[in-house]
Amino acid sequence: MKIAILGGDGFVGWPTSLHLSQAGHEIHILDNLSRRWIDTELGVQSLTPIDSIQERNRIWHAETGRRIRFHLLDLAGDYERLKGWLGEHRPDAVIHFAQQRAAPYSMKSDRHKNYTVSNNVNATHNLLNALVETGIDAHLVHLGTMGVYGYSTIGAAIPEGYLPVGIETLDGETVSQDILYPANPGSIYHMTKCLDQLLFQFYARNDQLRITDLHQGIVWGTHTRETRAHPQLINRFDYDGDYGTVLNRFLIQAAIGHPLTVHGTGGQTRAFIHIQDSVRCIELALANPPAAGERVKIFNQMTETHRVRDLASLVASMTGSEIACLPNPRKEAHENELVVKNDQFLGLGLDPITLEEGLLSEVVDVAKKFAYRVDRARVPAVSAWTRDLAQKVEHDPEGRRLRKVG
Amino acid sequence: MKIAILGGDGFVGWPTSLHLSQAGHEIHILDNLSRRWIDTELGVQSLTPIDSIQERNRIWHAETGRRIRFHLLDLAGDYERLKGWLGEHRPDAVIHFAQQRAAPYSMKSDRHKNYTVSNNVNATHNLLNALVETGIDAHLVHLGTMGVYGYSTIGAAIPEGYLPVGIETLDGETVSQDILYPANPGSIYHMTKCLDQLLFQFYARNDQLRITDLHQGIVWGTHTRETRAHPQLINRFDYDGDYGTVLNRFLIQAAIGHPLTVHGTGGQTRAFIHIQDSVRCIELALANPPAAGERVKIFNQMTETHRVRDLASLVASMTGSEIACLPNPRKEAHENELVVKNDQFLGLGLDPITLEEGLLSEVVDVAKKFAYRVDRARVPAVSAWTRDLAQKVEHDPEGRRLRKVG
Repeated sequence: MKIAILGGDGFVGWPTSLHLSQAGHEIHILDNLSRRWIDTELGVQSLTPIDSIQERNRIWHAETGRRIRFHLLDLAGDYERLKGWLGEHRPDAVIHFAQQRAAPYSMKSDRHKNYTVSNNVNATHNLLNALVETGIDAHLVHLGTMGVYGYSTIGAAIPEGYLPVGIETLDGETVSQDILYPANPGSIYHMTKCLDQLLFQFYARNDQLRITDLHQGIVWGTHTRETRAHPQLINRFDYDGDYGTVLNRFLIQAAIGHPLTVHGTGGQTRAFIHIQDSVRCIELALANPPAAGERVKIFNQMTETHRVRDLASLVASMTGSEIACLPNPRKEAHENELVVKNDQFLGLGLDPITLEEGLLSEVVDVAKKFAYRVDRARVPAVSAWTRDLAQKVEHDPEGRRLRKVG
Repeated sequence: MKIAILGGDGFVGWPTSLHLSQAGHEIHILDNLSRRWIDTELGVQSLTPIDSIQERNRIWHAETGRRIRFHLLDLAGDYERLKGWLGEHRPDAVIHFAQQRAAPYSMKSDRHKNYTVSNNVNATHNLLNALVETGIDAHLVHLGTMGVYGYSTIGAAIPEGYLPVGIETLDGETVSQDILYPANPGSIYHMTKCLDQLLFQFYARNDQLRITDLHQGIVWGTHTRETRAHPQLINRFDYDGDYGTVLNRFLIQAAIGHPLTVHGTGGQTRAFIHIQDSVRCIELALANPPAAGERVKIFNQMTETHRVRDLASLVASMTGSEIACLPNPRKEAHENELVVKNDQFLGLGLDPITLEEGLLSEVVDVAKKFAYRVDRARVPAVSAWTRDLAQKVEHDPEGRRLRKVG
């Protein structure tokens, strides 16, 4: 297959590009390199030293003889070039990772809120619009988030995208209908992924686009089989308070002797997936597209759930680290249960990599190896969801080290 | 109250501005005059000769001694000026009409789709973002549409925004929860209003903004008490295939001896409201804001429902016009039932103006008076929802007169 990977230079995009290239597909990465620019803006860098996308592609070719092509393209900002590119290359599938993907970054300031909404909505809509205009019948696979569901407190299992509900008709009968699971996003970033869902639904109905939306949990780990093949193919690893995800952050904190920072009670339950499973899921989704005219196919792309404080205890017991409880800059429930269905990927043959399988120590090794590159000042998560929460973070004795941003 | 009316130069914005000025409020219109620009783009004009906003305001002052201030401001494109304006003027309420509001225009071409999404989403988000940043506690009243509900075929009454649904918990119990009525938009324009709903929900929860969303039916009529006060205060009246709404279009077709054009079977049932009731509803909503921390208050702003073919018959019987059935350029159900709850406005004292009350002939009079200004070529509705539908419209014998656009 000829596959366009939008955002193919990012944390999930890069290992996906390698994985699908390895599987024999013709890979084109379209990326505006915004994630690298945001590193520059924030004054942080990937824990792992990553090469330019051009150099990465050169190494991949030298190692495997396979070519990955790179096209510098701003999906949200340059509709006409996108349309031209799609019309010329006519890919069989398009994988859409090209969105601002950090909740804390999206809540940093009014500028960051506007950027996230405008960038993410226009990126998705430009793509849908251009697929219709060019008339190419490419399967669109989008990376969404478990966060579209919010964290329900009613204790029901989260289905894969659609919820059957009973609606009372005028005749007094109750009719069952499948609806998109009611959106309850926890940040501006998560909200943009809820907006995406409605855009997908509309274009699948009106224009028969074939769309798969992957509601992904929090990714942990950094290596995949392909990124391990050469030091210069290494994946990015974010440890900072904006882009670092909770488990990876605990592991880097352990590696540099920083207490593991748990926000609030740590009672938040979250869904997780290893990066290797993430790329495997995308491959499975690609191989199982919906038919034209079918509703958007939604998968829950996660393999296990854990409470944040249990993860902290696990890492502490592995590494001897202390745990520090800090005020929570997010507006969210202190404690929540989370039960998630993921039968579809399991049914397609996914064999999950779980936390128990020893890969945690691999991440600890990565963290230790590159610990000299860590800027300790960038470890705390300080983007607050509201002004009140910003003040709490500021005035807490434990939080004094934390710099307020925005 | 000091009230900012965003989009106050438009079809509902202008009579609302007059109505609230008459009621003693301090009115500021913020508008980028995009509706006038779109007239220029399409080469059409309001049936009624409307003056510039500056001249309208001058006449209003001369007639009543009251001042309406106009501020040229692009809500979607100039966040910083909006924030500055709100911070300086600190209005008690903000009424948000400032969006591209025609479904056919939004489906005209890929450029029009992109414009509608980008303009409408950024307009709403900029406003919410600026309200949080400036910290002013203004009640936000937004004009939404009945179209967010789509046209359900299950025969249930459409509640006011929220639907109670039963969800089965892990314990096997069924818990009832109020959710936003599942979105099923029929066009890109309607979809942007669904996106708005999620933006409102997020900001009401995260930042305790006080928000009212009015799900309005199709507006008919043109005059209100205040626009009748002077010929130069007259409201705009759109009769073209993009911006004209169905009943007003039938009336102008009757006035110029054009057959009444019914798309498809005319079995589509729609919700209607007279422009005078529309401004009255906005006044009622303003006087009844939700409390901070409360969910978004949603009203169904409509007073009656009718099938399109029944409206055509009514107008035909009044005027002796013929009815012509044309292929439907929209992708929609041929026939639908529609039962809508509007108990909230009735409870607040709304006394609906219905089609039977003689105001139809007032619109016929307006149409006849200005019939000399009609460009007959702009009457047909030709923006097609998909390429297939565009071809059907093109090739139908009755449709040959219709020009394909986009």
